[in-house]
Formats: sequence, structure tokens, C-alpha cells
Amino acid sequence: MIQKLIDNIQKTGAPIVVGLDPMMKYIPQQLQKAAFAEFGETMEGAAEAIWQFNKAILDATADLIPAVKPQIAMYEQFGIPGLTAFQKTCAYAREKGLVVIGDVKRGDIGSTSAAYATAHLGRVKIGSAEFEPFAEDFATVNPYLGSDGVIPFVESCNTYDKGIFVLVKTSNPSSGEFQDREIEGRALYEWVGEKVAEWGEMSMDGAYSNVGAVVGATYPEMGKKLRKIMPKTFILVPGYGAQGGKGADLVHFFNEDGLGAIVNSSRGIIAAYQQEQYASYGEAAFADASRAAVEAMRLDIAQALQNR
Amino acid sequence: MIQKLIDNIQKTGAPIVVGLDPMMKYIPQQLQKAAFAEFGETMEGAAEAIWQFNKAILDATADLIPAVKPQIAMYEQFGIPGLTAFQKTCAYAREKGLVVIGDVKRGDIGSTSAAYATAHLGRVKIGSAEFEPFAEDFATVNPYLGSDGVIPFVESCNTYDKGIFVLVKTSNPSSGEFQDREIEGRALYEWVGEKVAEWGEMSMDGAYSNVGAVVGATYPEMGKKLRKIMPKTFILVPGYGAQGGKGADLVHFFNEDGLGAIVNSSRGIIAAYQQEQYASYGEAAFADASRAAVEAMRLDIAQALQNR
Repeated sequence: MIQKLIDNIQKTGAPIVVGLDPMMKYIPQQLQKAAFAEFGETMEGAAEAIWQFNKAILDATADLIPAVKPQIAMYEQFGIPGLTAFQKTCAYAREKGLVVIGDVKRGDIGSTSAAYATAHLGRVKIGSAEFEPFAEDFATVNPYLGSDGVIPFVESCNTYDKGIFVLVKTSNPSSGEFQDREIEGRALYEWVGEKVAEWGEMSMDGAYSNVGAVVGATYPEMGKKLRKIMPKTFILVPGYGAQGGKGADLVHFFNEDGLGAIVNSSRGIIAAYQQEQYASYGEAAFADASRAAVEAMRLDIAQALQNR
Repeated sequence: MIQKLIDNIQKTGAPIVVGLDPMMKYIPQQLQKAAFAEFGETMEGAAEAIWQFNKAILDATADLIPAVKPQIAMYEQFGIPGLTAFQKTCAYAREKGLVVIGDVKRGDIGSTSAAYATAHLGRVKIGSAEFEPFAEDFATVNPYLGSDGVIPFVESCNTYDKGIFVLVKTSNPSSGEFQDREIEGRALYEWVGEKVAEWGEMSMDGAYSNVGAVVGATYPEMGKKLRKIMPKTFILVPGYGAQGGKGADLVHFFNEDGLGAIVNSSRGIIAAYQQEQYASYGEAAFADASRAAVEAMRLDIAQALQNR
């Protein structure tokens, strides 16, 4: 599956993923009104507003981007209707040829991790039939439980041609509380990175592995170190834009081949119309504002890579 | 909410939680056949079988136990119908007066963790209305992302009188890969335990905190250490029974007051009829076998606590 992501990146020239993390405050009033008129002020109504919002953004940006990353928490908070909107969003994005990275941060042990892998990447067998529960292409995975927690996902990658991104160094301010602590002279995130490289050998797909890593844009020096520790690992880089990461911070996440990283922006793209820079689009043209923000992000990263 | 759990434990004399982790292979043929006859060999059919299985076990054991712990992965793998069965199971258990510990192992950063907390413990506001998406009483939380990831859950505990159990030392064989690594002379799980105690101060409910910890029965020596590091923390102890933990291993997880721990058994209870010891019940009386297994587990733990 990593090869499919690479193909999409090369086709679009944009190592970019749009985070579909639709909070209600990002959704234009007209969409909310229409959804609530049809379904009432209910979880179904909120889910409909989210779905229409995502659909408009996908329609406006799909030709420019290789992938989207829906954050499942933003859907899960609207219960079953919300998760149905998550599922519809994943399916619609895949129909458009996009790679879908489910930001689910799952992780458990043994058969439980295997069940999560089935839910998000695999197929569940029921009698003689098989079903794809959520049908993402990649899932994000939490490594705290060790190999027992991660390897069932790697097995699903091999069985179904899928991929994962394992949390290594997250973008948030308190990520250092545990991840930066020193163990025999090296930070925990380095040890996790080493394991990711090891797990990655179990699922190679061309020059890169289906087992990727999450490393926050907000920690460029650590990105540089991890790039060396995990040379065949694709790095999913959150924290660009709203969280403070800039194009110039990102160059060390990429390999010499110009590949090896994909940068996420969520509210910087999907809520672009709420930012001063794109305010002239107005609420009605929110999806056009998102398209403009994707183009600006692509340029920012391309220039940073040229100047490195 | 921890006080409600303590009340239930004292009422039943059983510091026990039944893990409702229904794999299809545990579900008697007669239940599967009836469900598939009604809904076909579909995810709806599987979800119905799971729900009928859980309902029978809850009906047979609810008066003996304080709490249940449904493992959401086992439901998520059956997609939307599976998650609907999860929701029904949680609601039915709460109707019976049980405390519901959602074993969801969620964890992310900032507003995303807040969304997970809303999904599992809180209420979501939509216009002037409010809804409880999954309506658990406790949720398990992964600490890898640090305080940013955990505190939004603690805030939900305070707002909605709920609780969490943070993963500290998990029961699986590879849990030591990261959790046991030494940082300034102490294992990572000890540092995490210290943080749990600190977060716990933010949500006290009587003598114990609403912020609990997960520590595997398979590591009794570490349980002893963690008991001291987190004196006001309730410990959820998985790994009893099928994973190899015994009553005698558990005593150090408890405080002098006889409280402070709750021991989980999943397949040891719900699939008791498949074990030699309870085979005489037969498949049709699977729920009675579960009841007998709960009684045996209660006795094993009570004896171990008496003999300590």
C-alpha cells in the first residue's frame, strides 16, 4: 500500500495529506441549518452536516492531493451516526482514488489488536461471507504495548495490502513527558523508532515499508534523527500550520529521493475560510478556500525542499 | 464514579469485572444459528449473536458482580452493527446496576482526546440538545502522548462523574519492550504510575481517585511496586485466568483496606462452558457455566486475600 501512496504523491507532486477532522465550529452555518432541518438537532443531523462538509472539501481538493486522514474521534463523538459518516467519508475518498489514512490510534494486545486491524484494515469472515468493516488504507497505531500490539496490524498489512503509521514522536507539547525520556543514553522515541524499522522489515513494498511512523512537525531536530534511524520508513508528519510547523522545518523528514514523508494539515485546510488569509472567500465558498490553502501548502513544502 | 464501583464491590463482595470480549468462537452454535436465520450471514447477524450472548451472560451473573468490561475491538470488527451491539450491551449492563468499564484504550491530544472523552464518557451538545454517544462509566486510556492526552479525559471525569483506567503496565508478554525500560534507575511504568497518581489528584472521589490504572496480573512484583507509587489509585488487573494470573498473584494489588483493585477475567468467564472444568454444563447452559466460573473466581480471590 505504501507504493500506492507514493504513486499518488508523485502524480500530484504534493506530499500532503488533508486531515478531515470536522469540528462543528468549522462547518458553515448553511450546511448545519440544512442538515438540522432534515434530521433535527440530533447526532444524525450533526453527522449529515459533517458528511456534506467533507464531501464538498473532497470534491474541491481531490485532484490536488494524494491522501486524506480522517480523525475518527471527531466522528466517534457523534456515536453511531458519526461513525457512519466516517465510513461514508472513507468510501467516498477511496472512490476518488485517494489513499485513506484512518487516524484511529488503536493498539491493544494479541487477538484484540487483530480485531482492531480487522475493523480498520481487514475483512471480517462471517460464515462463508466476508465484509470490510471500515475499509481504510492505513491506520495509525499506538506502540505502548510493544510488539504484541503492533504485529497483528503488520499481519493485516501483508494479508490485505494495507499500511500503518506507528506513533513515535507526537506533535503535542507534552509528548516529551515519556517519549523523550532517556534510556541508556537515547530517548524512548529513538527506541520506538528502531522497533518501527524492525517491524517495517516484515512488510516491505518496494523501497519503503508499509509500516510507517508518526513524527510531529513541531520537533524538526528529532525528525532528523528519526529519519536516519528509520531509512525505509515513511513518516506521517502532523503539526504543520495550525500547530506551528512550517515548510522549512519539514525538510529533514524527507529522504534524498524527495520521498519518505507526508505532511498533514487539518484545520489549516478544512477551516481555511475562517482564517484571515482566506476570509475573502466567505463562508459559502469554504471549499474553494480549502483548495487555495492546499495549493499554498504544496508550494510552501516544494520551496522548502528546493532550498534545502 | 470510583465510589459507585467501590459500593458495588462491597455489595457483592467480589472485586471482579467480567470482560465481555465476545469472539465468535465463544458463541454457542444455537445462538449463532438463530441470529443468522434472522439477519443472514452478515455483520448484523454477527452483532445479534453477540448481543444475545452478552445478554444471557449478564442475566446469569449480574447479581454476583460489580462491573463489566466490554472490549470495544471485538465489536468494532463488526463495523456499525457491532458498535451498536456494544452500545446495547453497555446500556443493558447499566440498567442492571453494573458499572461499565469501556475497554477502548483511546488516547490522542488536546481537542481530539476531548472528543474521545465525549464519545465514551460525556455528552455531546448539538444545538440546544445533548446526547450520550456510548455512555460508559469508565474508559481505558493510553498514556503514550503524555498529559495532553490524558487530562481531557480527567476533565470529563469531573464534569460527568466518570472514571478512567490509564495503561501503566500491561499484561502481555512484550509489555516490557518499552514499559520496563529504565529511566534514571526506574522503569518507564513507574514514571507513568507516578503521573497517574498526579492526574488522580485532579479527580478524587472519597478515598480513591476516579483516575485508575491498568496493571497486569501477570506481573505481580511490579503490581506491588505500583501499589506503593499510587496509593489512592484503583488498579484494574487484567490477565487473571486464561492469561495465567492466579488469585495468589493478586494480593499485592490490593490495599490494606481490601480495596484498591478489581480483577478482570474475560474468556475464563464468558467461555467457561468450553473449558474442561465446566464442560458438564454443555453448550446450551453456557450462561450457567459463566455463573459458576464467577463464583469460583470470587472464592479464589477471597481466599488469597484472607491468606495474605
